Amino acid sequence: MSIPVPPVPAFPPVPFTLTSVKGLRAAGVRAGIKPSGNPDVALLVSDGPMTCAGLFTQNHFAAAPVLLSRRHLAATGGLVRAVVVNSGNANACTGVQGEHDALEMCQRVAAAVGCPVEQVLVCSTGVIGVKLPMEKVRAGIDAAIAALSTDVEAGRQFLSAIMTTDAFPKEAGVRVGDATMAGVCKGAGMIQPDMATMLAFVATDVDVGADTLRAVMARIANTSFNAVHVDTHTSTNDTFLLLTTRKVPAPADWEQRLEPVARRLAWLIARDGEGATKVTTVRVLGASSDAVAKRIARHVAASALVRTALFGNDPNWGRFVSQVGNVAEVKAPQKLLCRLQGIEVFRAGEPTPFDRAAASKAMAREDVSLEIVLDEGQGHAVLMTSDLGYRYVQVNAEYTT
Amino acid sequence: MSIPVPPVPAFPPVPFTLTSVKGLRAAGVRAGIKPSGNPDVALLVSDGPMTCAGLFTQNHFAAAPVLLSRRHLAATGGLVRAVVVNSGNANACTGVQGEHDALEMCQRVAAAVGCPVEQVLVCSTGVIGVKLPMEKVRAGIDAAIAALSTDVEAGRQFLSAIMTTDAFPKEAGVRVGDATMAGVCKGAGMIQPDMATMLAFVATDVDVGADTLRAVMARIANTSFNAVHVDTHTSTNDTFLLLTTRKVPAPADWEQRLEPVARRLAWLIARDGEGATKVTTVRVLGASSDAVAKRIARHVAASALVRTALFGNDPNWGRFVSQVGNVAEVKAPQKLLCRLQGIEVFRAGEPTPFDRAAASKAMAREDVSLEIVLDEGQGHAVLMTSDLGYRYVQVNAEYTT
Repeated sequence: MSIPVPPVPAFPPVPFTLTSVKGLRAAGVRAGIKPSGNPDVALLVSDGPMTCAGLFTQNHFAAAPVLLSRRHLAATGGLVRAVVVNSGNANACTGVQGEHDALEMCQRVAAAVGCPVEQVLVCSTGVIGVKLPMEKVRAGIDAAIAALSTDVEAGRQFLSAIMTTDAFPKEAGVRVGDATMAGVCKGAGMIQPDMATMLAFVATDVDVGADTLRAVMARIANTSFNAVHVDTHTSTNDTFLLLTTRKVPAPADWEQRLEPVARRLAWLIARDGEGATKVTTVRVLGASSDAVAKRIARHVAASALVRTALFGNDPNWGRFVSQVGNVAEVKAPQKLLCRLQGIEVFRAGEPTPFDRAAASKAMAREDVSLEIVLDEGQGHAVLMTSDLGYRYVQVNAEYTT
Repeated sequence: MSIPVPPVPAFPPVPFTLTSVKGLRAAGVRAGIKPSGNPDVALLVSDGPMTCAGLFTQNHFAAAPVLLSRRHLAATGGLVRAVVVNSGNANACTGVQGEHDALEMCQRVAAAVGCPVEQVLVCSTGVIGVKLPMEKVRAGIDAAIAALSTDVEAGRQFLSAIMTTDAFPKEAGVRVGDATMAGVCKGAGMIQPDMATMLAFVATDVDVGADTLRAVMARIANTSFNAVHVDTHTSTNDTFLLLTTRKVPAPADWEQRLEPVARRLAWLIARDGEGATKVTTVRVLGASSDAVAKRIARHVAASALVRTALFGNDPNWGRFVSQVGNVAEVKAPQKLLCRLQGIEVFRAGEPTPFDRAAASKAMAREDVSLEIVLDEGQGHAVLMTSDLGYRYVQVNAEYTT
């Protein structure tokens, strides 16, 4: 049976970043929002309106910047001149003051850039329930505007200024002829990234319209950022923006080239899951529908018992299979087949005899594959999950939002 | 707002057990199924047919003993003469041989007791995917039959022989006039107890018919064993049997007196969650329906981020509230109120100022209360969950089913 999604390609270290995209300038500065003193205000500005498609958290407690950016995108039909980001404070659960502050951030950027306020989007990430220190934010925005540059280094500063608990910077990109596709993201939560906001910015310079961009974004999100997030488990601030400056004719295969960039970024987020030692890609094949496949994948990937077994390199087929058995929509459980790192461990209601030590050894890698194969239809789904180890407990029991 | 479910009463050490129920004999013996050599075959026999109501796992991979017991109960309409249990091997994922073995266990007991095979139920718990060592099981059943007794000690041996990874024995009971209500259980998994089977046996001698018993069992399970198990997250072998020998006129309040016994047993299972340091009772009030309330409670209680915060005594309102915000059916999130150990921590979209150190101190207990209060209707739900600490990871990363 063929696997619908190819493995994530091993990207070489990225020699370019957001500012490598034609028409983009970026900056990242230290505004003093983070107690650590690390960069915390980031700005991305294009030399003309970009086309943009956005995907935002579904959480009922969506933060003020999310609500505002969503409104701005809707008002312009997807035209964006600038994106301003602060880290260290999520501006979530901050009431009416939070809404005013998000708007003021956009207004300040719009005034400096010379565009309608609706063409500025804003993202925030960090502690919640605390008002933004607006004096610092204002000064930070002014400094970022002054620092805008097309240098690779400026793009790196942008990335640096969006990070919070990330253990490493996350970027990916590819060049296709004259076109560039590059992205950065932050996020170190995994399948339930509440309070561990994911922000992702993927930019390109291919010339496509807003409708096309939106359709491509929806498809790409499905195998990347939405495949890390288990559905409906989203933080107050999660945002994914796909932007294009439209400077270059779009190569025929631009979507196919862009998708692995987004997937690589999503994989990096899973890899940086709090205390994670590996990313396990759960693939469900042969389900009665894609929706059922997703439900099964989610059930398996979200299980603390499954995730601790993955951490322990324990080829614990019982936990995987039992989670599938808990999904009501599964109709022919007796036909279930389960493979771990390509090794068949379960078939037709009974464990397959396999070399447990060899399977355990095969699991001791940072990229693990768990396949659940049913015989009920064509539905499939892919989900990337982190394992759950001691460091996860340490980070989450001792970190206060 | 009143809390629909009272706190679990602090039971005194139980001076009686299953065998204190009029008409019951029990035994627990060492058959050598467990490598540890601990007792592993248990038998409960009544002097005449008992009335029985049973609740079994919904898992598609329900084990052979579950399928057989379910059939037996249906065939007799709820008449049971004996229950045989083995620990150390779950007889799950064992194919046709497993079905034969489960039947043989019932046949052997039926022949010795002198009853139809359908009046014998069977439960198994332990490793899965391994055939039962039937020679040992047969000898164990014979030894258990020979050891049957009405002594308290025999009841304790029964309990001892059903345990697997349990850190402590679990029993509870109450006397109401002439009637006795007593129960034992095993299980050290929590809200996703896959491969950590819960077995619970609650017996009484009140004279009620099968229909009444079934109705009472359904209500009681809802606030006890089904409130530890998050729905549809059940192991291959989970079984709850409520049995009565019908020797004593039923006191008017027998159901009200029985419910805390079952709830206490369920609480003990949560308390023994792998590596747990406490039980948190999540109460959702004011939801639009009981079903929505349950969905919210489940979403909160199942979150690894919530459970690590509970472990760390971290009054992390953001994680609690954000999980509620991820439930689509919540209609008025702005009215949500959240209380932790009676301390209000969130109201009307913003955190309530509260003494963080005092709240953290209040959480450092084995019985913690988390209330989610909505203003959308009369729906409520209660769920008991363990916290998630270092020991959870240790136990689950290093234990192979």
